[in-house]
Amino acid sequence: MKDRFLRACRREPVDMTPVWFMRQAGRYMAEYRALRERYSLLEICAQPEIAVAVTLQPVDAIDVDAAILFSDLLLPFTPLGLDFDFVKGEGPSVERPIRSAADVERLREVEPREALGHVLETIRLLRRELEGRVPLVGFGGAPFTLAAYAIEGGPSTTYAHTKAFMYSEPQAWHRLCGRFASLIADYMRAQIEAGAQAIQIFDSWAGALSRPDYREFALPHSRHIFEALSDTGVPVIHFGVGAAAILRDLSLAGGDVIGVDWRLPLDEAWEVIGADRGIQGNLDPTRLLGPADGLFAAATEVLRQAGGRPGHIFNLGHGVLPGTPLERVQELARYVHRTSAS
Amino acid sequence: MKDRFLRACRREPVDMTPVWFMRQAGRYMAEYRALRERYSLLEICAQPEIAVAVTLQPVDAIDVDAAILFSDLLLPFTPLGLDFDFVKGEGPSVERPIRSAADVERLREVEPREALGHVLETIRLLRRELEGRVPLVGFGGAPFTLAAYAIEGGPSTTYAHTKAFMYSEPQAWHRLCGRFASLIADYMRAQIEAGAQAIQIFDSWAGALSRPDYREFALPHSRHIFEALSDTGVPVIHFGVGAAAILRDLSLAGGDVIGVDWRLPLDEAWEVIGADRGIQGNLDPTRLLGPADGLFAAATEVLRQAGGRPGHIFNLGHGVLPGTPLERVQELARYVHRTSAS
Repeated sequence: MKDRFLRACRREPVDMTPVWFMRQAGRYMAEYRALRERYSLLEICAQPEIAVAVTLQPVDAIDVDAAILFSDLLLPFTPLGLDFDFVKGEGPSVERPIRSAADVERLREVEPREALGHVLETIRLLRRELEGRVPLVGFGGAPFTLAAYAIEGGPSTTYAHTKAFMYSEPQAWHRLCGRFASLIADYMRAQIEAGAQAIQIFDSWAGALSRPDYREFALPHSRHIFEALSDTGVPVIHFGVGAAAILRDLSLAGGDVIGVDWRLPLDEAWEVIGADRGIQGNLDPTRLLGPADGLFAAATEVLRQAGGRPGHIFNLGHGVLPGTPLERVQELARYVHRTSAS
Repeated sequence: MKDRFLRACRREPVDMTPVWFMRQAGRYMAEYRALRERYSLLEICAQPEIAVAVTLQPVDAIDVDAAILFSDLLLPFTPLGLDFDFVKGEGPSVERPIRSAADVERLREVEPREALGHVLETIRLLRRELEGRVPLVGFGGAPFTLAAYAIEGGPSTTYAHTKAFMYSEPQAWHRLCGRFASLIADYMRAQIEAGAQAIQIFDSWAGALSRPDYREFALPHSRHIFEALSDTGVPVIHFGVGAAAILRDLSLAGGDVIGVDWRLPLDEAWEVIGADRGIQGNLDPTRLLGPADGLFAAATEVLRQAGGRPGHIFNLGHGVLPGTPLERVQELARYVHRTSAS
């Protein structure tokens, strides 16, 4: 098995910089679009054989050093009693968003090994299929991001409902995030037991918070997850978006590797995070929509900033965008390997 | 006239911290909603008497130290040949977004004193109405943000079209931003001649850019505007959102005062910007949706970080949100004045 991804997670020397891409399975791939003509996103997630096939599509097509489970951050919502669906062009939409303390109390108890057994089955099947190839990354949402989805009911630019709830009902907020923290800790442990060899925690919306708010309303709940997983020996990546101003606190919440976007130069981000952690990132995914020379120049700059230090995993600063040419992604993976080979 | 806003712009001592609010005229005010039942946003902007009335609504209702012209960043689009309208709940929508170098060449020449004469007339009327009360702030968009609107055709979270264009067609990109830079410089100068006593340049989307991209694709065009206005003697505020990682470069582009959001603590932001500039901000506008004690505590923290140094203008880190109770805004203005009074 290619082990450079897991070695980099542990900050061990590697023969070349490992690379994988957030949303490496998705709309930009013709095979995925073909499957999506027959199945909805949630149908793919619910059927292990299909989720396996989608997870493997980029592993077959691109020289990546890790597979990432094809799933969705919001899958735990349904068993909690938060029904949701995907509205075309708008992302997820929660039927009855959480808007009161009583709504928090209404959430059902969830045993992820039962309620999300199909995801665990996907992981078991994937490990069998992937044996001898690349490690498998499982994932879940950070409590702040999940709570914000549950309260907004879908994407937001202002997080007005979320923050109004947080400020007005701090006890209910902490109960809600506490519920997500223990559920996700449990769910990630189950993913690891099923065979996930690394975990990524997505705090996609944490960048909306001021530093004091991150510390008060988000950090303790994220920390719970990292602490709960610390005895597993499985590396955990902690990813935030637009989080330049809270990066130090985000890294203090936990994570063996911190995932960063392109807004802060990688060397500066690593300085903030500290040399005792790995770093994942941080090419702007829109670079893949432009010409190859600019793409390679930007990738070279990321590698230069990483300085060949052990602990760098090359990735984008956010997911691969729909409309990205597959060839560009293939070229980028090859380029990162070739350029970083020692 | 209350002059503490203009004094703070020049970093002169003030009796108390000046305060105004981005979008202090808007949906959260009953008087505005009543007018909006009869007129669209663009109709209000196009009719000086109505735009004057809307601009004055918060000046009458709240103890603010500045009035901000009621207008829209995209008004210059129509004379350029970029027809747009507002789609309910989704924001502006440009009919035929710019997607090629040829689209850039197609843009019409604009003489803002003619094409946007109604805005200048609004300013002249406002100065008459405001005489003896508070200074009037005019405004315009920064070239990057305007180009991104023109290319995306509306709000975006990824700026995929914008960045793909920027990377793939750098010459056309620079021509487009050059057009916006000279048009906005000219338009701002016309606003000043009509009576605007300060100008705010909104680079609302600059936070989407990496630092090298900001330097290459945005900064030179923004700088053109600040340099073009430097001989007017009128203070210019330069505002960015989510710009923590590019704040130094944004301030180097220009501006007597730099407007910042809540993501970076104000004292740290001021350190980055440098003591030779003023700072405007930076309360999270969602604080106005929560209870008064939390609002006042957060406002106190902003004032503490400003440390009573000359050059701080209290504002939100983004516009007042719809649904904000007017009383909270009134209380906040009074609180800032009372707490900062020397």
